[in-house]
Amino acid sequence: MKLLLINPNISDSVSALIRSEAERSASPGTHIEVLTAPFGVAYIETRFEALIGGYAAAQLAAEHHAQYDAVVVAAFGDPGLMALREVLPIPVVGLTDAALTSACLLGRRISIIAISQRIQAWYREVVESYGLGSRLASIRALDRPLASIGAVQDEHAQALQALAERAVDEDGTDVIILAGAPLAGLARLLKGRLPVPAVDGVSSAVRQAETLVALQPGMARRGSFSPPPPKPHHGLPPAIARLLDPSA
Amino acid sequence: MKLLLINPNISDSVSALIRSEAERSASPGTHIEVLTAPFGVAYIETRFEALIGGYAAAQLAAEHHAQYDAVVVAAFGDPGLMALREVLPIPVVGLTDAALTSACLLGRRISIIAISQRIQAWYREVVESYGLGSRLASIRALDRPLASIGAVQDEHAQALQALAERAVDEDGTDVIILAGAPLAGLARLLKGRLPVPAVDGVSSAVRQAETLVALQPGMARRGSFSPPPPKPHHGLPPAIARLLDPSA
Amino acid sequence: MKLLLINPNISDSVSALIRSEAERSASPGTHIEVLTAPFGVAYIETRFEALIGGYAAAQLAAEHHAQYDAVVVAAFGDPGLMALREVLPIPVVGLTDAALTSACLLGRRISIIAISQRIQAWYREVVESYGLGSRLASIRALDRPLASIGAVQDEHAQALQALAERAVDEDGTDVIILAGAPLAGLARLLKGRLPVPAVDGVSSAVRQAETLVALQPGMARRGSFSPPPPKPHHGLPPAIARLLDPSA
Amino acid sequence: MKLLLINPNISDSVSALIRSEAERSASPGTHIEVLTAPFGVAYIETRFEALIGGYAAAQLAAEHHAQYDAVVVAAFGDPGLMALREVLPIPVVGLTDAALTSACLLGRRISIIAISQRIQAWYREVVESYGLGSRLASIRALDRPLASIGAVQDEHAQALQALAERAVDEDGTDVIILAGAPLAGLARLLKGRLPVPAVDGVSSAVRQAETLVALQPGMARRGSFSPPPPKPHHGLPPAIARLLDPSA
Amino acid sequence: MKLLLINPNISDSVSALIRSEAERSASPGTHIEVLTAPFGVAYIETRFEALIGGYAAAQLAAEHHAQYDAVVVAAFGDPGLMALREVLPIPVVGLTDAALTSACLLGRRISIIAISQRIQAWYREVVESYGLGSRLASIRALDRPLASIGAVQDEHAQALQALAERAVDEDGTDVIILAGAPLAGLARLLKGRLPVPAVDGVSSAVRQAETLVALQPGMARRGSFSPPPPKPHHGLPPAIARLLDPSA
Amino acid sequence: MKLLLINPNISDSVSALIRSEAERSASPGTHIEVLTAPFGVAYIETRFEALIGGYAAAQLAAEHHAQYDAVVVAAFGDPGLMALREVLPIPVVGLTDAALTSACLLGRRISIIAISQRIQAWYREVVESYGLGSRLASIRALDRPLASIGAVQDEHAQALQALAERAVDEDGTDVIILAGAPLAGLARLLKGRLPVPAVDGVSSAVRQAETLVALQPGMARRGSFSPPPPKPHHGLPPAIARLLDPSA
Repeated sequence: MKLLLINPNISDSVSALIRSEAERSASPGTHIEVLTAPFGVAYIETRFEALIGGYAAAQLAAEHHAQYDAVVVAAFGDPGLMALREVLPIPVVGLTDAALTSACLLGRRISIIAISQRIQAWYREVVESYGLGSRLASIRALDRPLASIGAVQDEHAQALQALAERAVDEDGTDVIILAGAPLAGLARLLKGRLPVPAVDGVSSAVRQAETLVALQPGMARRGSFSPPPPKPHHGLPPAIARLLDPSA
Repeated sequence: MKLLLINPNISDSVSALIRSEAERSASPGTHIEVLTAPFGVAYIETRFEALIGGYAAAQLAAEHHAQYDAVVVAAFGDPGLMALREVLPIPVVGLTDAALTSACLLGRRISIIAISQRIQAWYREVVESYGLGSRLASIRALDRPLASIGAVQDEHAQALQALAERAVDEDGTDVIILAGAPLAGLARLLKGRLPVPAVDGVSSAVRQAETLVALQPGMARRGSFSPPPPKPHHGLPPAIARLLDPSA
Repeated sequence: MKLLLINPNISDSVSALIRSEAERSASPGTHIEVLTAPFGVAYIETRFEALIGGYAAAQLAAEHHAQYDAVVVAAFGDPGLMALREVLPIPVVGLTDAALTSACLLGRRISIIAISQRIQAWYREVVESYGLGSRLASIRALDRPLASIGAVQDEHAQALQALAERAVDEDGTDVIILAGAPLAGLARLLKGRLPVPAVDGVSSAVRQAETLVALQPGMARRGSFSPPPPKPHHGLPPAIARLLDPSA
Repeated sequence: MKLLLINPNISDSVSALIRSEAERSASPGTHIEVLTAPFGVAYIETRFEALIGGYAAAQLAAEHHAQYDAVVVAAFGDPGLMALREVLPIPVVGLTDAALTSACLLGRRISIIAISQRIQAWYREVVESYGLGSRLASIRALDRPLASIGAVQDEHAQALQALAERAVDEDGTDVIILAGAPLAGLARLLKGRLPVPAVDGVSSAVRQAETLVALQPGMARRGSFSPPPPKPHHGLPPAIARLLDPSA
Repeated sequence: MKLLLINPNISDSVSALIRSEAERSASPGTHIEVLTAPFGVAYIETRFEALIGGYAAAQLAAEHHAQYDAVVVAAFGDPGLMALREVLPIPVVGLTDAALTSACLLGRRISIIAISQRIQAWYREVVESYGLGSRLASIRALDRPLASIGAVQDEHAQALQALAERAVDEDGTDVIILAGAPLAGLARLLKGRLPVPAVDGVSSAVRQAETLVALQPGMARRGSFSPPPPKPHHGLPPAIARLLDPSA
Repeated sequence: MKLLLINPNISDSVSALIRSEAERSASPGTHIEVLTAPFGVAYIETRFEALIGGYAAAQLAAEHHAQYDAVVVAAFGDPGLMALREVLPIPVVGLTDAALTSACLLGRRISIIAISQRIQAWYREVVESYGLGSRLASIRALDRPLASIGAVQDEHAQALQALAERAVDEDGTDVIILAGAPLAGLARLLKGRLPVPAVDGVSSAVRQAETLVALQPGMARRGSFSPPPPKPHHGLPPAIARLLDPSA
């Protein structure tokens, strides 16, 4: 099985974290590829940055999906995920999507631990757009500037653990999600040190993508996730145009 | 006052409808400009098409907003709206946003009349993302293929009116929204022929944009609609890069 | 265009604030009239006071609406608004209704800053009755007794600004509503001093009323906002009786 | 124990139905009094009529409550109920309030059978304002004009029973509420003929009022149902003025 | 009238509290019987303990209901309640069910005061399963270990009262529920000392059970609370088997 | 890896279906064991039957879990699932839980196809208790009696497929869940014949259980899914007593 993980941001250091955790998480026989966005920002905290990342993810997915069994949008917040699920002929999962899924199987109330204050509003809207607002106990976030996005874990591991403790004690959470590709692998590192189960977006997404490939549920030929009806288009990158017009 | 209306799609015929209704709706002294997306699809029915339209709208807005007092994203479904509201230093409204606003002031339950079956799922998600799901009585849509997107009104006026009647009789609606830029002006045409008030996205957006400019509520310097924190970026169109990095 | 603003309370000093802000907010050519309730309380904090104010507003509207293009119920909480929207042949807006509308176009999460602790429960119920509970970040209120309802702004401007700051910092709000007719004009006064956009009920209502008059959406002839079906009545003030029985 | 039932409408025939069902439902030793509104409409179908009925109920309650242990607002839709609960020093229940309470103890999903199409929107808003929207399976209503409000049961018993059957079969309801004072006693009449439990507003309200008197839960001295803070008032009916100013 | 109260736990001391408060609350002529579970735990704090208590309650109800007019599941959280409501031919109420009902008639927002921190998650889920989450202002609980479940009131009365005060002041609650059979009678004891009305599960349940018996609403012959369709079963306690197979 | 699947019902024929689909779905190296409840009913349609099945599942899990890496409660509706998740030291998933999880990764709106009319109310309550009510497009069910629970698929495959088609066309669903252990394997059989992706509870649960074992998220030591605090108990089956009192 071949999985394509798309980092919708330009940070190679984060792509390395993603690859490392994905490879640790994958089943035997699963091959992992990670691509980094050729344009965009260092990491996504806002709706505007998510719009850019979503478009970058779409371009990469359009160009490269044909060689893979499933695609993972490897940023928490899942930029472009629902759009890609319409047009790709293979399963697509996102880090938020997948981490929430794992978390829902482990408890009732879920807290997200995030890397910046600003990122919280966007995360909340994404969780609510998935209809899971009632499962969300809290989002808690670091409140100091990030010196380097690829080194968040090293610099802030203790602060992140403290946020998780407070989510349990003050927000009544049952499960922790350590959110954001820059935290990929941290759940594994903290194993046994948190008072409740903790899950990670990258490892959840890899496993959930494998599961969808294994279940072979079929693709949508009708309904809102079937391919968009063909219509005139103009000026699009060739790979995106092909997704809209597969017979062309 | 100068308003920039951005058609996130490539259809000049729809841009003409938008311009015509916008000019009829504007207050004396308001100048209307309409720009058409240089790339994209003929009209947006799905999440993937909305992702493309959102990125196109962002590029146009980034390049041209400086000469205007407010921007209107002139497609129902508001692709890119919330993202642009973060980065532009002027008010931004969308057709759905504005039409819902007008409708909320006229009744309790609202129905949306739309131009295609497929478009309904996306519209529903947009309304729900605005927290207005409980106001939505129904979405009803044409069920025949559209011969020409610029001529929907002429070909289907009777069918659209019949859908509105059914929304009142079967769904208990209080207000009708005639949705989608291709229907711009239809509410004006049907005046007096519908059993409940009817509103239109373009005219509502023009008036709401004027209102926001007049109220001068101030821009966000903190919170989730203030400009994204500066961070490294790469490979972006220059106008978008400037939005992310105003001091550069 | 002629707008009738009805203060459902007996405070002439508040009516003066309403008139002043309404005139500053109105478009050129809009004529503003403000009427003060002939019976009732000094200001409304509770459901029982709202019931009284709603009945007073209904009497004034019934007697005077014929000379106007639209009516504004000029108390936050909108006593009698939905009832009047059924029977008046012209648009009716309320301060809450209109302020929420403006706020929804400026951000996602909204906080209301109010003049008394007691008033919060009623405000919350009104916002929830409009289906907008999920947009409400918080209601924050002054906690000291009001010496004079007409001088709240002067005495408490600093405290009100501090409440707005806390709403942004602690409740994650994107937009502030300075609520209640006694605060009419305060948003204008604080321009540039708040970290997020701020809106005011009176100016929003004046502009939204103008917009509804301009859009000419038509009145309800069916549905729950069409006039009540005629039925026997008895003992009502003549103007109210006429509303129920227009043909009489 | 003495219970005051207030018919907020002017129909003596409906007051007679209310009295009759109330007396059949009351515990031994409970004395029933029914008062009819001195002004208002024949029955309430709309928000505007509810505003009138609420004010009429408030006047009657203000004038007469002193001799009673509890007050029942005896119209479905409960005009004025929450307002009176703030100011009266004794328990106050409404027909909707009480019928929903009984119904919640008998099943999960509840359907309301009503006397007119128009009345449904108002009923729905009342149920939702009580936070019970998720318990409401449906509202179904007669669709023919009412010849006489006091004779609805006789003329339409069969149609009402058919509506209840459809609520069970098509809406998946567990409990039926036969709604509206004009249907007082119908549940008793149909006993054994409906496929699910059926409750009635008047009998539920009488019993629930008795229960509240027996439980002696205490009155609110703080919070949103404590009496409104004293403030200047003017021009009010003396009994209402006394409620606002008990020490005067 | 004969009421059967089932304590789904093994604590005779709690059964004594239940009996005492039930007898004080019952109407003249109502006979109270209290049975204690023959197996189970001392009190229920968790979902697993509720599963055990629900099964114990079902066995007792199956064996003994035939001699009674109604059954009360006498633990807050109502283990087994909805299940028993399907199979018993008489009304069944629970302490949570009944206390919420009383509380809904006294105010808008309700707080639950509970005996342990751990119990709160389960209580919250029960309230939400009744569709009453929007009425719940807060759950507040003792945070010290319970020396003896039968003596909670004596040891902690002051702490419980302090929790109620905080619910009013900090959570904006209108009504207090003193939750859990071990607190049976405490509301009566604190009468006049709390700032808002307070209700108790046992007394509410006794009165609500009496009301349902008096109203005679009929039993479900269709819908989701009618008896389960007969089907093969095996190995069940005889009384439970009889409930599933009444004709056998 | 060893998975224990517990059929909470007494039907060996259904256990055979479960085993067969589980073995087809499991990863290489996963060992499947299926146990059938020693007491209970043939299949669960109601809350009371779920209470029995939940207790049976608890007994089997208590007795046998020690030899396994994870437990699956193998009835749709997940009787006892949340309770077992508190007390077992290994992951526990249910068929509804797991199928919803898979479905959420494939689309937005989900329909459940079920084997009997009566079962729908219980299923709906379970989905809502998971906070996923907003994802549920519909539940549709067979309306003819089941001749044999082990042969539902053979007798009704065509009717079940027709229900799925209607869910897509009339309810706007994106994903189908073929619900209930008696339908285990049907999704596999219908592959390619349904217009949208279809998932199955047994295969989803097996894969999700494997995923949780692989992710090693840690167990809850605090919060509402940590083991119940020790307390006196009496009369319990030894294995259940041991779960409550691990140190004994």
